[in-house]
Amino acid sequence: MPVLQVSLSTRSYPISIEVDAIAAAAQTVADLQAGGRKIAVVSDQNVLSAHETRLRELFGADVPLLAIAPGESSKSLAEFGRIMDFLAEHRIDRTGALWAVGGGVIGDLAGFAAASWLRGIEFYQVPTTLLAMVDSSVGGKTGINITAGKNLVGAFHQPRAVFIGTRFLSSLPPREFAAGAAEIIKYGLLGDAALVARLEREPLTPTSADLGEVIRGCCAQKAAIVAADERELAKEGGRALLNLGHTFGHAIEQVAGYGTYLHGEAVAIGLNAATRLSHRLGLLDASEIGRVERLVEAHALPSRLREPLAVTELMAATARDKKVRAGVLRFVVMARIGEAITRDGIPTTLAEECFREVGAA
Amino acid sequence: MPVLQVSLSTRSYPISIEVDAIAAAAQTVADLQAGGRKIAVVSDQNVLSAHETRLRELFGADVPLLAIAPGESSKSLAEFGRIMDFLAEHRIDRTGALWAVGGGVIGDLAGFAAASWLRGIEFYQVPTTLLAMVDSSVGGKTGINITAGKNLVGAFHQPRAVFIGTRFLSSLPPREFAAGAAEIIKYGLLGDAALVARLEREPLTPTSADLGEVIRGCCAQKAAIVAADERELAKEGGRALLNLGHTFGHAIEQVAGYGTYLHGEAVAIGLNAATRLSHRLGLLDASEIGRVERLVEAHALPSRLREPLAVTELMAATARDKKVRAGVLRFVVMARIGEAITRDGIPTTLAEECFREVGAA
Repeated sequence: MPVLQVSLSTRSYPISIEVDAIAAAAQTVADLQAGGRKIAVVSDQNVLSAHETRLRELFGADVPLLAIAPGESSKSLAEFGRIMDFLAEHRIDRTGALWAVGGGVIGDLAGFAAASWLRGIEFYQVPTTLLAMVDSSVGGKTGINITAGKNLVGAFHQPRAVFIGTRFLSSLPPREFAAGAAEIIKYGLLGDAALVARLEREPLTPTSADLGEVIRGCCAQKAAIVAADERELAKEGGRALLNLGHTFGHAIEQVAGYGTYLHGEAVAIGLNAATRLSHRLGLLDASEIGRVERLVEAHALPSRLREPLAVTELMAATARDKKVRAGVLRFVVMARIGEAITRDGIPTTLAEECFREVGAA
Repeated sequence: MPVLQVSLSTRSYPISIEVDAIAAAAQTVADLQAGGRKIAVVSDQNVLSAHETRLRELFGADVPLLAIAPGESSKSLAEFGRIMDFLAEHRIDRTGALWAVGGGVIGDLAGFAAASWLRGIEFYQVPTTLLAMVDSSVGGKTGINITAGKNLVGAFHQPRAVFIGTRFLSSLPPREFAAGAAEIIKYGLLGDAALVARLEREPLTPTSADLGEVIRGCCAQKAAIVAADERELAKEGGRALLNLGHTFGHAIEQVAGYGTYLHGEAVAIGLNAATRLSHRLGLLDASEIGRVERLVEAHALPSRLREPLAVTELMAATARDKKVRAGVLRFVVMARIGEAITRDGIPTTLAEECFREVGAA
C-alpha cells in the first residue's frame, strides 16, 4: 500500500501500512545505524514475548531494549523516570532515536520520553495494537497519567516515521481488537459516513480483507484534521473533533479506575453517550441512537456501563478534563452521522442525563 | 529602560528590565485575570519569606502558590510531579498561566512543568537571582536533573514574558550574586570584548549604576544567538556558544555533587579551563589565562577547584554531557577574548590536562 504522508507545518512524516511492519522498518533502521546514530527501543513485555527475536534481528542483537509492564498503569511518572535512566545508561545522545514498539501506552509513554530526553530526540513508532495504529500513529500527542487524570502531563512530539503492520493484529486478544474498533467507529461517526456504512455491512475483524485500507482511511482522516490544527488551538472544530466520545469516555475510565475498562471500551460507551447528547441537543434523530448502539455491539464493545458509576463522580472527572476551557463544559457532538462539531456551554444536567442513560447512577 | 524583544521563529516575547519587577508585571497579571484565566505561581521558600506579601498583592490573596525547597536538588522528577499535582488540584486548564518567581532552579523546573502540563500552557518568569536574569530569561530551555546528569530531561518552552527587577539583587546573598556574575563574564568572553573591558575596570556589584544595562546587554546577546538557532541545531557555533565554560563546569558540578559548587562557581572554573584549552589549541596567548583568572577572582569567584576531583570521573561526566554529539568530544573555545567558536574532536588528553590545570587530580 502506498505510504501515507502526514503533513505538518514544521515537517512531514510517513506512515507505512503493510502486513509486516518489521520488514518495512528495516531500511530506516539501517540508515540510522549507517549514520552512526544510536537506537534505543521501548516495548512491553507481551510484545517482547511474541516478537523479541524479530526485533533483535531488526535492531541488532545488542540494541538497548527496555520492557515496560503492559497496562495503562505504566503510563506513570515513575516509568517515565525509568526510561530517562535507561537512555542515560545507554548514552543516547542528541543524534539518538527512540523507537516505541507496542500499543498506545508504550507509544504515549515513550513519545513523552523522546520529547523530554535532552529536550527532544527523534521518535519512531511501530504500533502493535489496532488502537495504536489508528489513534496514536497520527497527531504527536504523547503523555502520561497522574492521580488527577489521564494524559494530563505530556508533550506534542511528532514521530519521524510510523510503521504499521497488520500481522500484529492476528495475535491481538479479541478484547483489544474490539477496543481498537471503537476508535474506528469513532472516525466513521465524526467524519466518514461511508466508513459507518462499511462497518454496518460487516463488522471489522483481524481477517477483514480491507483491514489495511480501513486503518489507512482512519489515519488519513486524523492526519487531515491534525494538519489543520496541530496544537489543538482551533476555537471550533479542529483536533477537538477527534475527542468524540472521549470526554465521556475519559471520565468513565477514571471513575471506574484505570484498567477496569479498556480505553476503547470506555470510548464505545462514550460514543453512545455522545449520540444521546446529540439527540438531546436536537441534532440527531432518536433512531440514530439505536443505530450507534448496534454498531458498537456488533464489534463486541459495551454500549453501557457494566456496573453503575456515580454521576457526581463522573461529572467531577468531566470538569477536570483538559478539554474543558476556562471552566466551560465543552463536548463534541454529531450534527449528523459522519459529521462532528464542538459545542460549548453544555448544561451540566444534560451531560448528567447522558451519563445516566448509559448506566450511571 | 525600554523593553527588550526576543524574536523567535514561532513568536516573540518581551523582557522588561526595571528596578521593581512586581510593579512591571501588574498590567500583564491584570490582563490575564480580566480574561478569566487562572494563574498559578511556583516559587521557592526563600523568595516567599522575603516577598510573599507583595506577590499576593500582585496575583491576589488566594492565588495558588507552591513553595519549592531552595537548591538544585529540587530540579527533580519528584518536584516536577508535585507541580503536576498542584496544577491538577487547582484545576489549571489550557487557558491557565504558570508564573515562576525565583532563581534558575524555579525557572527551569516550573518551565518544564508549564511545557508538560496539558502538553503546554503559558509560562511567565520573574527571575530573582542575577544568574536567572541573564541566563534563564532567554532561550526557553527548561529541565530537571536525574542521577546521570544535569538538565538531561526537559523541553524547549518559551516564556510569554519575563519581568526582571534589579531590586531583588540587593537582598541576594553575595555568593549568589557572584555566581550570576560568572555568566556575565561568560557573555563578555564569548561575544562582547567591551563588556570584558567594563568588568575589568570595575567588578559588577548589586549597586553598580549600570547593573540593569549590563543585564540587558547579556539578555540581548543571548536573544540574538537563540533567535538564530532556537533549537540548538546549528552544526557550528549557534546556541552551543552559550556553553562556553559549561562542558567543564557541568562535569565539575556533577562529580563534586550538585550543591558543592553553585552553578556559576563551576562555570567560573570552567571558563578558566576553557581559556586554557583555547591556549593549548593555539588560539589564545598565554597572557589571556591570567587575565581571565583575575577577572573571575575579582568577582569573588573560584578559578580553580577548592578540593581536587578525579580527572577520570570528570572525563566520564564530560562524555555523558548532552553537548557531546555522536560520541565526539566537542568544546566551546575562544578564538580571541570576545569571540567563542565550537571545536569538535578535541583529544581526550587535552581536556584532561585542562581539568588538571584547574585543580583536578
